[in-house]
Amino acid sequence: MYKSILITGGARSGKSTLAERKALAPCGRAVYIATAEIWPGDTEMAERIARHQARRGADWHNLHAPRDLCAALRGSDSAGGPPRLVDCLTLWMTNLLLAEADWRAEVRALAAETARQEAPVIFVTNEVGMGIVPENALARRFRDAAGWMNQAMAEACDEVWLAVAGYPTRVKPNEHTF
Amino acid sequence: MYKSILITGGARSGKSTLAERKALAPCGRAVYIATAEIWPGDTEMAERIARHQARRGADWHNLHAPRDLCAALRGSDSAGGPPRLVDCLTLWMTNLLLAEADWRAEVRALAAETARQEAPVIFVTNEVGMGIVPENALARRFRDAAGWMNQAMAEACDEVWLAVAGYPTRVKPNEHTF
Amino acid sequence: MYKSILITGGARSGKSTLAERKALAPCGRAVYIATAEIWPGDTEMAERIARHQARRGADWHNLHAPRDLCAALRGSDSAGGPPRLVDCLTLWMTNLLLAEADWRAEVRALAAETARQEAPVIFVTNEVGMGIVPENALARRFRDAAGWMNQAMAEACDEVWLAVAGYPTRVKPNEHTF
Repeated sequence: MYKSILITGGARSGKSTLAERKALAPCGRAVYIATAEIWPGDTEMAERIARHQARRGADWHNLHAPRDLCAALRGSDSAGGPPRLVDCLTLWMTNLLLAEADWRAEVRALAAETARQEAPVIFVTNEVGMGIVPENALARRFRDAAGWMNQAMAEACDEVWLAVAGYPTRVKPNEHTF
Repeated sequence: MYKSILITGGARSGKSTLAERKALAPCGRAVYIATAEIWPGDTEMAERIARHQARRGADWHNLHAPRDLCAALRGSDSAGGPPRLVDCLTLWMTNLLLAEADWRAEVRALAAETARQEAPVIFVTNEVGMGIVPENALARRFRDAAGWMNQAMAEACDEVWLAVAGYPTRVKPNEHTF
Repeated sequence: MYKSILITGGARSGKSTLAERKALAPCGRAVYIATAEIWPGDTEMAERIARHQARRGADWHNLHAPRDLCAALRGSDSAGGPPRLVDCLTLWMTNLLLAEADWRAEVRALAAETARQEAPVIFVTNEVGMGIVPENALARRFRDAAGWMNQAMAEACDEVWLAVAGYPTRVKPNEHTF
């Protein structure tokens, strides 16, 4: 069985749906680790989270970890235990940047923690670097940090998939020698 | 022979050229269904349309369907008839949003109509979700709607291809089990 | 051995690292052809270039060709000679657009020059067309030009790869018949 998977893709590419299906596959239940920081007044995000929770239903145990993903993984891990789904890494990175945290160190710690997990873990992340260079410097910093994180977590995971229009295309392992 | 194909890709990724080649392959002629609403004064779009029509030439029968794609598909369908090329779904979605139409219902109807077609149909669409989150809310709504539509139409079509630098990479069917 | 490769991908997708590894593979040394125009006061770009040069080290011979890539390729080419890495084509296109050059002619010349090379050459470029349509007209022109160039150079090269989260996915040649 897979041990760690990274699913990346654009907005509304079906990443979360694919990840949820994969997380439930082994035993019909899974742990959902949400990273979204819910800010007062952000109704767009709050509505999205509520929609997602309602759709997932009772097969899921819900955790909230906007900052300390390593602790959430350690606390939910057990040999033979249910898969954990982290949704998503780009919101986590947003939180790290807003808190002016040492995000490179945090990503390295998460990659190391991933390697120590006994139960499966699936990470959802976003492709954010295939548009025009953003005009504002903060967006450029976010884009660079998210790309750096995606590379580090892709290296840490056994499998990497790119979601396109709801379908998973395999990135790692890849049968073509570069 | 293929029955329905979705070709997605970024701006200037060669989607339309690939779709045109594929549409002409069976019998050397095809029906072009343009969805672009031509607004007074939008010279950028008008020039692009004129360039595309001139390049395509006499093998094509041209239809214009900025809103009612289902009617255009029904009206141009016949067993053994020429393929239809719809270019493109993202402009159609733009028209639906501007008209404040029930776009989810319209997409579901198009997916159902696609399944009923006798002659082949090829849809061109755009990847618009792999950049930074847009700052304005309308752009975010469009991005969400376009992604949702791409998933629904990918599910409805027999094949899905992602154009990268003019080359088609296959998304559906996919030989890798997720 | 490969003769010409195009590596495309989003920002921070690992394109340059992959390209460098590939360039050094045949003989442990290679020629780096930088296209970045360094403008007075652009500390963001200057720092990035310095970081990259420091990381690459002594195995590289460094050239600078912000405009005349054909001359740089001709001048560094020899049968059995080391690979050349051009990093990157999108910065080169930026320079052409700022200089109001005939960029279509320049791209065609580069494609033709690529076909005449004896030693291997690797081009790094960017996917810039998978986000929302940019609001300003200059960004749209750049996006169109970059996409057109990527198609032309992909056709000119023996291999095309898309970098996703640090991993290369093969675009050309492709075993799936479209």
